[in-house]
Amino acid sequence: MTTMLIPRAVRAQAPALSKELAPNYGSTVCRRWKSGPYGYTQAKALVYSKYGDPSNVLSLHTHSISPSLPSNQLLLRTLATPINPADINQIQGVYPSRPPFTTLLGTPEPSAVGGNEGCFQVQSVGSAIKSVQKGDWVIMKNTGFGTWRTHALAKENNVLKIEDKEGLSPLQVGTVSVNPCTAYRMLKDFTTLEPSQDWFIQNGANSGVGRAAIQLGREWGYSSINIIRDRKTAEDTEAMKKELLDLGATKVLTESELQSREGAAHIIDWTGGKNLKLGLNCVGGPQTQALTKTLSQGAHLVTYGAMSKQPLSVPTGLLIFKDIKFSGYWVSRWSDAHPEEKKKTVEEILTLTREGKFKDVPFQEMRWDWGTEESVLKGGIAGTLEGFRSGKGVLVYGDT
Amino acid sequence: MTTMLIPRAVRAQAPALSKELAPNYGSTVCRRWKSGPYGYTQAKALVYSKYGDPSNVLSLHTHSISPSLPSNQLLLRTLATPINPADINQIQGVYPSRPPFTTLLGTPEPSAVGGNEGCFQVQSVGSAIKSVQKGDWVIMKNTGFGTWRTHALAKENNVLKIEDKEGLSPLQVGTVSVNPCTAYRMLKDFTTLEPSQDWFIQNGANSGVGRAAIQLGREWGYSSINIIRDRKTAEDTEAMKKELLDLGATKVLTESELQSREGAAHIIDWTGGKNLKLGLNCVGGPQTQALTKTLSQGAHLVTYGAMSKQPLSVPTGLLIFKDIKFSGYWVSRWSDAHPEEKKKTVEEILTLTREGKFKDVPFQEMRWDWGTEESVLKGGIAGTLEGFRSGKGVLVYGDT
Repeated sequence: MTTMLIPRAVRAQAPALSKELAPNYGSTVCRRWKSGPYGYTQAKALVYSKYGDPSNVLSLHTHSISPSLPSNQLLLRTLATPINPADINQIQGVYPSRPPFTTLLGTPEPSAVGGNEGCFQVQSVGSAIKSVQKGDWVIMKNTGFGTWRTHALAKENNVLKIEDKEGLSPLQVGTVSVNPCTAYRMLKDFTTLEPSQDWFIQNGANSGVGRAAIQLGREWGYSSINIIRDRKTAEDTEAMKKELLDLGATKVLTESELQSREGAAHIIDWTGGKNLKLGLNCVGGPQTQALTKTLSQGAHLVTYGAMSKQPLSVPTGLLIFKDIKFSGYWVSRWSDAHPEEKKKTVEEILTLTREGKFKDVPFQEMRWDWGTEESVLKGGIAGTLEGFRSGKGVLVYGDT
Repeated sequence: MTTMLIPRAVRAQAPALSKELAPNYGSTVCRRWKSGPYGYTQAKALVYSKYGDPSNVLSLHTHSISPSLPSNQLLLRTLATPINPADINQIQGVYPSRPPFTTLLGTPEPSAVGGNEGCFQVQSVGSAIKSVQKGDWVIMKNTGFGTWRTHALAKENNVLKIEDKEGLSPLQVGTVSVNPCTAYRMLKDFTTLEPSQDWFIQNGANSGVGRAAIQLGREWGYSSINIIRDRKTAEDTEAMKKELLDLGATKVLTESELQSREGAAHIIDWTGGKNLKLGLNCVGGPQTQALTKTLSQGAHLVTYGAMSKQPLSVPTGLLIFKDIKFSGYWVSRWSDAHPEEKKKTVEEILTLTREGKFKDVPFQEMRWDWGTEESVLKGGIAGTLEGFRSGKGVLVYGDT
């Protein structure tokens, strides 16, 4: 990458707003600092140089990007980037995928940029670039690129072009490749569910993945049993149940209802005891046994998270006699192995989104303007783990 | 079935030995009571009418079988039947496959016959039977038939004919369909191991299944890492290691060697960290984690037993990030679903046996003659669970 650190004095001379770089998408008006006196693009990035708590190790780094693009590179500006729990784990150093620390952005210490997902607009392209052009929206092909930044230089094969962005918001595009793709592939890649016949069951049903699975299941004719944590009040529980039923959930049970004899009996009744072919698990620990035991003979339990932070406990009889199969799903691995399939999956979900058949999870938007303080950005990111349950944080880039 | 209870007084009149029914297989001379004055075959069976400890609930039941066979039935006499741990669990009522209790043998209470595996010789066939003839050896197609009996009436589709019994002993044939088939299918049906490249690891390596897997692996070019329990003395440990190495094990480690840092490092060294594609587990419990953690990315752990009687504990990271897949294997389910494949698998193993490439596990033979006391048979069966480790009990039918 060809980035250069430019003195702050130079950056301060470059406040001119370029109108051509301010498309109006939805309700968010984008204004961009284009260039200083030498045509440099001013950029900021949330970087870290060691692993630890994001509020300790993240810092907001300002740098500049040369106007003379290498022929094989793209200059992207960022429109929206979510804050996923995995991003936090990555910064904490407890995630298996770790981007290398480099000095490409001119940081005092080698660093990496936080974030893995996002929607970007192509601002300019090198002379050899054919597949995308200025104004196109792209997402990252793989995780690990570092997306919490106002601008980025990328290569053509770093990105997947969104073929038709009409009717979509940057937020919808910028959040499609992790949670919705996870739900999509877990419903399709482990067992074959027969429409109008088969069921799946999932815990963490009101998470981003859970809500995506409910809606895709509804579209594909798969009935769903959705487990949520017990809320503090009966009203809160009923409100959450209603929300998921409105999304297309077939049944919603609380964790304690699942653990009860009646809950298990209901599930056998609903599914005929033989059509519950798939379980999606993001909780783990001993409490997941109750969910696993509801699965029908030969079913598959797919684990994609461990909110309980405890290992999955698997009674041997479920393996040997009930032939339950246990796998894990990691969307990063899938993305890296199947870029073409990722593109198709993303396009299919975005089509459903455009048609109003696939709704976003409740998002907490956090605006990142040029003047947004480092402390504000770091505070918003640190609050994300709770956001995983109550809604999800997304950085929406405004006046950067 | 057409069985009749005949008074003991009648049975007592029928001691005549039929020479034609006394083939000499190996060193065991078979003598048979053929018939009483009315041509009835005298038979005995170990039956149970309620679930419980075998020494409490088993009884030796004497009955007679009419000489006039229905056209679609076979009269079998039993040559050898092993005592597998699952047979004990079945009698205890803790096994998912339970034969129905019936009055077909004329027991005072409805009963089932113990045992699931064995080698039988066809004694006579009904007029409509085409696929087998007198003198053929057969095994049971499915489990649950009840094999601890001197004779049995069966239908044509209950049995699989051994196409070439030349050079084989009833013991070899009578023990082929559970443990060797389990090892065979686990090595073949869950992942594709590349000969001369890939490895598998197994605990309980000196069990019947373990020894079968070692030998099949050796024949097929799969290297094996074999975990055994620590013996009381270093000499005993070395003796067991030598025994398994002589069978064709590539490496043998004790449980404590596996749990050590050096053990894990050795395994990475041997397998290049990427060619350990399959684990076979008959232990379960927390201690199996060490074995699971040695598996390479994307490997499969197949569980077929639970000697620790504890659930398998599965760290979520192994599922999600290392993509380890967990399945169970139950040979009864496979037999029922794939009778043709069972026949082929059995024939292939018996061919290796005949060629001296597949050796029996150490067996404890227990002879069942007409005069063998009930208490002797029950005592031998009750001693089988320990036999699972130190050798396996097989009932060999002599003068019955």
